Amino acid sequence: MGPGKGIEPLNEKGDISLIIEKMDTTLVNDFNAYRERMNETILDADNLVLKRLFNLDTRTYEEGALSSRTKEMLGLVASMVLRCDDCIKYHLGKCYEQGLSKAEVYEIFAVANIVGGTIVIPHTRRAAEYWEALSAEK
Amino acid sequence: MGPGKGIEPLNEKGDISLIIEKMDTTLVNDFNAYRERMNETILDADNLVLKRLFNLDTRTYEEGALSSRTKEMLGLVASMVLRCDDCIKYHLGKCYEQGLSKAEVYEIFAVANIVGGTIVIPHTRRAAEYWEALSAEK
Amino acid sequence: MGPGKGIEPLNEKGDISLIIEKMDTTLVNDFNAYRERMNETILDADNLVLKRLFNLDTRTYEEGALSSRTKEMLGLVASMVLRCDDCIKYHLGKCYEQGLSKAEVYEIFAVANIVGGTIVIPHTRRAAEYWEALSAEK
Amino acid sequence: MGPGKGIEPLNEKGDISLIIEKMDTTLVNDFNAYRERMNETILDADNLVLKRLFNLDTRTYEEGALSSRTKEMLGLVASMVLRCDDCIKYHLGKCYEQGLSKAEVYEIFAVANIVGGTIVIPHTRRAAEYWEALSAEK
Amino acid sequence: MGPGKGIEPLNEKGDISLIIEKMDTTLVNDFNAYRERMNETILDADNLVLKRLFNLDTRTYEEGALSSRTKEMLGLVASMVLRCDDCIKYHLGKCYEQGLSKAEVYEIFAVANIVGGTIVIPHTRRAAEYWEALSAEK
Amino acid sequence: MGPGKGIEPLNEKGDISLIIEKMDTTLVNDFNAYRERMNETILDADNLVLKRLFNLDTRTYEEGALSSRTKEMLGLVASMVLRCDDCIKYHLGKCYEQGLSKAEVYEIFAVANIVGGTIVIPHTRRAAEYWEALSAEK
Repeated sequence: MGPGKGIEPLNEKGDISLIIEKMDTTLVNDFNAYRERMNETILDADNLVLKRLFNLDTRTYEEGALSSRTKEMLGLVASMVLRCDDCIKYHLGKCYEQGLSKAEVYEIFAVANIVGGTIVIPHTRRAAEYWEALSAEK
Repeated sequence: MGPGKGIEPLNEKGDISLIIEKMDTTLVNDFNAYRERMNETILDADNLVLKRLFNLDTRTYEEGALSSRTKEMLGLVASMVLRCDDCIKYHLGKCYEQGLSKAEVYEIFAVANIVGGTIVIPHTRRAAEYWEALSAEK
Repeated sequence: MGPGKGIEPLNEKGDISLIIEKMDTTLVNDFNAYRERMNETILDADNLVLKRLFNLDTRTYEEGALSSRTKEMLGLVASMVLRCDDCIKYHLGKCYEQGLSKAEVYEIFAVANIVGGTIVIPHTRRAAEYWEALSAEK
Repeated sequence: MGPGKGIEPLNEKGDISLIIEKMDTTLVNDFNAYRERMNETILDADNLVLKRLFNLDTRTYEEGALSSRTKEMLGLVASMVLRCDDCIKYHLGKCYEQGLSKAEVYEIFAVANIVGGTIVIPHTRRAAEYWEALSAEK
Repeated sequence: MGPGKGIEPLNEKGDISLIIEKMDTTLVNDFNAYRERMNETILDADNLVLKRLFNLDTRTYEEGALSSRTKEMLGLVASMVLRCDDCIKYHLGKCYEQGLSKAEVYEIFAVANIVGGTIVIPHTRRAAEYWEALSAEK
Repeated sequence: MGPGKGIEPLNEKGDISLIIEKMDTTLVNDFNAYRERMNETILDADNLVLKRLFNLDTRTYEEGALSSRTKEMLGLVASMVLRCDDCIKYHLGKCYEQGLSKAEVYEIFAVANIVGGTIVIPHTRRAAEYWEALSAEK
C-alpha cells in the first residue's frame, strides 16, 4: 500500500469500494510476502531433500500429458480436501493466472465439498474470500 | 456490543470482568458474522451442488430417529476429531442452544481426545475458550 | 464353524439364509478374535503408556454426565469420519449391545457422511454389512 | 468366471496372459459387485440424507462449466490424497471410460504423490494394479 | 511355501511353532513381493516426477545430521499417526534391520498412539503382528 | 520482554535486530501463555479422562528404552505430518531445550515433508519461523 494513499481524494469508485479493494490486495500481498520470506528461510538452511522437493513441486505442475491449467485445478482440489488454507491460496492464485472463470472455480469447490464433506466449508469460505481478493486486483 | 459502552462508568461487576465479557462476545460475534457473510458469498455464486449440500447439511441435524440434541453432539465430536476449529465453534454454539451442561460438553471433549489423540488438545483449548465465551453471553 | 455343519440337512430356514448367517457370524467372530489376540500381544509387551491408554479408553465410554449409549454413538461417528474400519466395527458392536435401532444407526451414518463427505461411503458400505452381520446373530 | 473355463484349450494369447486377464477382470468385477450390492443395502435403509447425498454425488460429476472428464480427474486426485482405495478404484474406472491415456493418469498420480507425500505410494501401487486390470479388459 | 512341506516329519521345534513361523514369513514375503512388483509397474510408466520422488524418498533416510536409525524411527512414527499400514510395515522392516529392540519399537508405538489417539490401535495390532513376523524370521 | 526496553538507547546490535528479537520473543511467549492459560481452564473442568490423558502425555516423553531427546523428535515429526501448528511449536520448544542443532531439526522437517507431502510446507514455514524465534531468545 503506497504512502499517503489514505488521504487521497475519493476516486470515481467511491470510498467504500476503494477500501475493500485495498483490504483484498492486502490479503493477497500478505500471503505472498510471508510465503516468499519463509521459503527463503527454509532454502537457506540448505537441506538437500527439502530443496529437491521444492524443485520437484514446481516441475509437477508444468505442461505435460496434462496441461498446467488442468494440473493447477488438480492441485486446488487436492489442497481443499486436505484442508490446507495456504495451499488453497497458492493454487487459487495459479488458477486465476490460468484464466479460470468463477463458475469453473466453484465447480472445483463443489467437488471438494462433496468428496471431503462439510468440514471443507470453512475452507471454502476463506477460498471464496481469497478469490474475491484476486478478482479485485487490477 | 452496545454503542458507547466503552465510556460507561464501571457497573457492579467491576472493569476486568466487563472487559472479559466483551472479549468473549466479540469471539462469538466475529465468528458468526464472518460465517454468515461468506456463506452468502458462496450461495450468491449459484452453484447447484453447493446450494444443495448446504441445504442437506441443515436437514442432517433435524429431529428424527435421534434427537437434534444428540445429533449436535455427534456433529461436535466429529468436528473435533477432524480438527476443524470453525466446525467446532458452530456445533458448540448449537450444543449451547440445546442446553448441554459443561460436564456433558467436556465428556464430548474427552471422547474426541481419546479417539483422536493429543493433536486434538490445541483444538480443545480453543473449544474451551469458545465455550466460556458462549457461557459469558447473556 | 462347527465340524461337519456343511453336510447337515437343511433346517427350516433353507440353505441360502443359513449360509448367509454363517458368513455374517464369521465376519463378527473373525474381527473379535483377531482384536482380542493382538490386544493380548500388545499388552504382553508391557509398555506402561499403552497399557494406561487401553485402560483410559475403556473408562471413556463409561456412564457419566452422558450415558454409555450416547458415548458409543459418539465413538461410532468419530470412527467413521476418521475412516477407521476396525474402530467402526468395534463401536457398531457396542451400539448393537446398547440396543440402537437400525434407523438410529443410519442417522449416525448420515451425520458421518455429511461431515466427512463421500470418502466415508466405502466405510459406510462395510459398516452396513457389519450391522447386517450383527443383526443376523442370535 | 464361467464354469469349465479352466479346462478349455489355450487360445492364441497363451495361458499365462489368459490367467492374468482373468485375475484382472476379477479385481474390477469384484469391486463393482460389492459396491453395487452394499449401495443397495444402504439405500434400502431409506435414510433421506444418505439418499440425497448419493444423488448429489452423481450430479457433481455431470457436465457443467467443467467437463465430466475434468471432474473425474478432480475426483481421482482428491480420492488419492485422501487415501481412499475404493474411491480411487471408482474414479479410475470413470477416467478409463472417459478415455484418459496412461500418461495422463500417471500425471494425476504424480500430483497426488507430491501433494500428499510418500504415504500415497501404497495407494498408487494399488491404483496402478487396478489401471492394468481396467486396461486388460476388452 | 515349498511343495510337500506339509507332510515332512516334525523338526525339533515341533509342528505348531513351525506353522507359525511359516505364516509369519509369508506375511513379510507377501508384503515385500507385492511392493517390489508394483513399484516396478509404477517406475515402468516412466513418469519423471514419480521417479524423482521415489529417489528422493530413499535419500531422505540416509545417514546425515541424524543417523539412519533415528530417521527410520521418525518414518515409523509418521506412518503410524498417518495410519498407513504398508508404510508401517516398510519402516518396521527397516527398524528391524537397524537392530531396534522390542522395547524401543513399543515406545515408538506408544508415542504414535498418544499423539494420534485410539484410532491408531488397529494399526498397532497389525504392526505388533508384523513385528512378531519379522522376529520369527531367521 | 523487560520493562522500559522500548525507550532504551540502541544497544550494539542496532535497532532492527532488537525489534526482530522482540517479535520472536513475543511469538514464543504468546504461544506458551495461551497454552498454559487454556490448559488450566481445561483441567479446572475436572474431567477425569482428560486429566489422565494430560498426565499420560507427559509420561510418554520421559526417558525410557528411548531417550527423551529421541522421543521429542518423534513427537515433532508426528505433529508435522498431522499438520498441527501448536503441537509443532510445543515439540520444537522441547527439541530446542534438548539441544538439537538446526541441521538436525531440518532433517526432521525433511522426513515430515517427504512422508506427508507438500501440504506440510506451509506448516514448515511456520515451524522455521518459530525455530528462529527460539534461537533468538537468550
